[in-house]
Amino acid sequence: MFVEAAARLNVQVKLLDVGDTAPAKQINYLPGPDGKSQHIDGSFADPEKIRQLASQVDVLTIEIEHVDATQLQKVLDDKLVDAVHPLPSTIALIQDKYLQKVHLASKGLPLAEYVAVGPVDMSKATDAAQARSAQVESVAKIGAEFGFPLMLKSRTQAYDGKGNYVVRSADEAAAAVAALGDGKRGLYAEKWAPFEREVAVMVVRSATGEVRAYPAVETVHKNSICHTVFAPLRTADPGVEARARKIAEQAVATFGGAGVFGVEMFLMPNGELLINEIAPRPHNSGHYTIEAADTSQYENHVRAILGLPLGSTALKVPSAAMINILGLADSDKDNEAVAKTLVPAVVSLDVPGTTCHLYGKAGCRKGRKIGHITIVGQSDAQVRSRLHVIEEALDKATELAEKGGRLPSELTLPGVVALNASSAASSSTSQTQKGSSPKSAADFSHPQPLVGIIMGSDSDLPVMMAAAEILKKFDVPFELTIVSAHRTPDRMRTYARSAPARGLRAIIAGAGGAAHLPGMVAAQTALPVIGVPVKGSTLDGVDSLHSIVQMPRGIPVATVAINNSTNAALLAIRILAAADPTYLDKMQRYMEEMENEVNGKIERLAHDAWDYTLKK
Amino acid sequence: MFVEAAARLNVQVKLLDVGDTAPAKQINYLPGPDGKSQHIDGSFADPEKIRQLASQVDVLTIEIEHVDATQLQKVLDDKLVDAVHPLPSTIALIQDKYLQKVHLASKGLPLAEYVAVGPVDMSKATDAAQARSAQVESVAKIGAEFGFPLMLKSRTQAYDGKGNYVVRSADEAAAAVAALGDGKRGLYAEKWAPFEREVAVMVVRSATGEVRAYPAVETVHKNSICHTVFAPLRTADPGVEARARKIAEQAVATFGGAGVFGVEMFLMPNGELLINEIAPRPHNSGHYTIEAADTSQYENHVRAILGLPLGSTALKVPSAAMINILGLADSDKDNEAVAKTLVPAVVSLDVPGTTCHLYGKAGCRKGRKIGHITIVGQSDAQVRSRLHVIEEALDKATELAEKGGRLPSELTLPGVVALNASSAASSSTSQTQKGSSPKSAADFSHPQPLVGIIMGSDSDLPVMMAAAEILKKFDVPFELTIVSAHRTPDRMRTYARSAPARGLRAIIAGAGGAAHLPGMVAAQTALPVIGVPVKGSTLDGVDSLHSIVQMPRGIPVATVAINNSTNAALLAIRILAAADPTYLDKMQRYMEEMENEVNGKIERLAHDAWDYTLKK
Repeated sequence: MFVEAAARLNVQVKLLDVGDTAPAKQINYLPGPDGKSQHIDGSFADPEKIRQLASQVDVLTIEIEHVDATQLQKVLDDKLVDAVHPLPSTIALIQDKYLQKVHLASKGLPLAEYVAVGPVDMSKATDAAQARSAQVESVAKIGAEFGFPLMLKSRTQAYDGKGNYVVRSADEAAAAVAALGDGKRGLYAEKWAPFEREVAVMVVRSATGEVRAYPAVETVHKNSICHTVFAPLRTADPGVEARARKIAEQAVATFGGAGVFGVEMFLMPNGELLINEIAPRPHNSGHYTIEAADTSQYENHVRAILGLPLGSTALKVPSAAMINILGLADSDKDNEAVAKTLVPAVVSLDVPGTTCHLYGKAGCRKGRKIGHITIVGQSDAQVRSRLHVIEEALDKATELAEKGGRLPSELTLPGVVALNASSAASSSTSQTQKGSSPKSAADFSHPQPLVGIIMGSDSDLPVMMAAAEILKKFDVPFELTIVSAHRTPDRMRTYARSAPARGLRAIIAGAGGAAHLPGMVAAQTALPVIGVPVKGSTLDGVDSLHSIVQMPRGIPVATVAINNSTNAALLAIRILAAADPTYLDKMQRYMEEMENEVNGKIERLAHDAWDYTLKK
Repeated sequence: MFVEAAARLNVQVKLLDVGDTAPAKQINYLPGPDGKSQHIDGSFADPEKIRQLASQVDVLTIEIEHVDATQLQKVLDDKLVDAVHPLPSTIALIQDKYLQKVHLASKGLPLAEYVAVGPVDMSKATDAAQARSAQVESVAKIGAEFGFPLMLKSRTQAYDGKGNYVVRSADEAAAAVAALGDGKRGLYAEKWAPFEREVAVMVVRSATGEVRAYPAVETVHKNSICHTVFAPLRTADPGVEARARKIAEQAVATFGGAGVFGVEMFLMPNGELLINEIAPRPHNSGHYTIEAADTSQYENHVRAILGLPLGSTALKVPSAAMINILGLADSDKDNEAVAKTLVPAVVSLDVPGTTCHLYGKAGCRKGRKIGHITIVGQSDAQVRSRLHVIEEALDKATELAEKGGRLPSELTLPGVVALNASSAASSSTSQTQKGSSPKSAADFSHPQPLVGIIMGSDSDLPVMMAAAEILKKFDVPFELTIVSAHRTPDRMRTYARSAPARGLRAIIAGAGGAAHLPGMVAAQTALPVIGVPVKGSTLDGVDSLHSIVQMPRGIPVATVAINNSTNAALLAIRILAAADPTYLDKMQRYMEEMENEVNGKIERLAHDAWDYTLKK
């Protein structure tokens, strides 16, 4: 993905990786005079290979941090390259997660409490058995202080949950140390952080220290491996997204060198954000940016390391998600198992707004990231329903992979194993699940609502239900609840202020008499608020109408006719239609139907006028 | 771009093109056992090379139609490949633009009048001089019938304006024939089509005949070469976009084989659409789909030819544009001229929402397409203002290239010639025009308005001007005009019905007394309509308010307070804010400012209450 971004800017990339057909090499042919590829065949941990690469390029960068940072510093000192990005010192600092924490803490950034375990400098521990028992003793002591469970971590070479151990009691200390290097690796411990959700922010940093954060996203892990990512982050607390971006920018600003960095955080129940760890490179949580942001994380990495202007990090679509494709096969030779691994890819081809990225990796052993799928859409609800189709198929494939059953034909393309030309082309018609469509987005109190219907009292419900029915008819995800301006002012404040951060796009508020709810909600949100004057027992609803419509300059309420919550819902849909052609089409069809219905009545009236009212 | 799309689906591509470093080969390393690339070095017109390629792949497709179609048919007949897409017969038909017209006309598709020139079958014309004079005579005769100017075209090998000749009088017939092959090529003539605009539609076709059109776009040509593309197409006539898509789908449905097709059309002043020509491959007018559509034209081409499900052709962003980067250099060795060619690319790096695609072509001689830039944004106005920055720089570079002046430093990256790593990396700070920003989008009657302010009479202007001022303050592109329900009902109908197709997202309508304008506009558009009750000389505006707000079920008007057009504009901005975070932020800041302003008054009142009203 980095190579693609570089190629679009005519930037030549020379790669160091094992073999001729490493994924990045497949899409980057750099022929020498002999017609052979000039990429370097070797390990990114091999100092000699790093030196060889450095002598042939102008700028060196990394896509994985487990490299030989000492050698990177050396080639820089020896002036074999103009620059290494990020700085070798940054890479070294980040490689050691304990030192990373010490560094971030020294800059005042928020972290879960942490402490080194046993002998801090493992290079001086000559006797592994001695080091092991010192570590075990230390873990027990830290547990007594931090409490259990305790998160024990390797300081180095840890990723995707590897190198982490949850110690549930002092009794488990020895087993934990044994599992994490058995006295041969440095460890540290973190106080258990019972987070509510995980949040990540990609930040691009120029060599001169300019930082630009992408939107904060929610990451969902399964078995410690990133499973899905949702952008942008939605929270009831309206400040979280901006706080996460700010913390991430502050953290990345403390490092040296250019490039993109992934900052992973915990969102605690009290709204606090704690940095978990930082990756000095393009990150899985930023893959969605290829389809969903103005500039992808990869292009911004290219720009940053070359001193080109940083690109806009704004989302260009309203909502996006990413799901990883992980290997399900124990053997790469097992076609059936490979086909199961590819189920999400195959199914995604029939889901609108999806882009499937297969990396061209040689195998797909269990848990290996062999690709990902990005899903974009006009709303969270649409993205979730599209994702749902893929996740359902994935669950089925995973279950079959575990239990050993055969894949049903609707989850494969006939003859397709690796989605390659030779096998796919022979099937002239696709057999993927044409029939199945993402489940309907609209239901009562949808988890990703676009419209909120609120009313001052349940006595308004008979009037307001018509709005709910219209939204359901148009498949608009909505929520419906009671918010009283006079009886629950705090709830009203929270509801109004959190509305945009929760993803709402319009609020319909019904109220009667001294009808304050619509105006007071409008005063506390920047979203459009639609007011429905509910007719009370006196004054025919004129009191409600005037209370709602006669708002002071500065705070508008979109007022509809007395008791006409139908029109409030139709107005909410028109507001969605302003930016979403699908709803525009639906509204146009609805208006045509109304016209046809009246035309039908005209017809009946012409033929049947004398007893029209009776029959009706 | 095709190779990128294929790589994402793990589809192996083997290429036939001249040299080792043809653009597509650069991003596709297909090593054989000897480590050398397995692509084929040769011309796509060479029958032997086509045969060689066919024997090594499963499916053959093309990226340019000037191939040896006879040989393609032969390799298919000889079963060297499973499929050729589109069918060789389709390619042959399209290669000959005259036969293409005959075919389309036979299917009832709309075309400008056309007729063959001179001897139709050039293969039988053995004497070039004789053929030439027959052609000249024929052109003069056709001119007498069709009138001048007359469009004379080569039947084959014509693209980017090459092979076209505008014959202004019978006297020019000989010169025109001489310019177009001098009696050695078949010609045809078209009646002059004084089109209003040019329209293009990409259509993807499956092998089984399913067709899916992308949105219709406007294409702008300069010197017969595509200069810019705008998506979606905006027209005052609301039906044009759908008609263009339908004609394109019908046309592509008549061809055999799978793949994407580009359908170029003329939009005539009377609203008629005439097909100009069709390309049987991914097309320049569809490049915008890479960043702006659910599925790019390239991925859909890959899917179509492999029998995979076709991808969604919907736009995922509200607005997009594309501008080509054409060579300005006469010599590839002239660094200064190369730098001028790259000016649009360099400048685009500082413009949000842009993606620059450089193709890695070896040279950049004058007029050669060496890349393109896609621009996406939340509105046409935003996209145009972003494009404006690039076009201004391009105009400057073009002028300098023609007159020979040196490029000012703000249009280059220091030391950068080919945007390659070696030179760019040495400049740690960018010198591109940081200071210049796209010109403000909001002005009176903006050419790409998002909001329309209309009123029944100029007597409403004093009330409605406040709305214009608010929209200007928030940088919202708008238009302001008079539309009277009672005095100009036809104008009102046209205004309301054309609003979505012209790109409007909300309409503010002010009216007094028996105020019918807002409701009647709402009855004829699916967009949100905001009604401002204007206070007349009697009844204090209650007549206007009730006329506007008490709409029947089915047609809502978002009514604001009497005379309060400020709130109407603020509501329109909230409607935009529902889908655009930039406007949401602006509205939130506006509300904070209001709060601060009142806080200031509270302060003054506390210290200065006795003469507060006097001072105020």
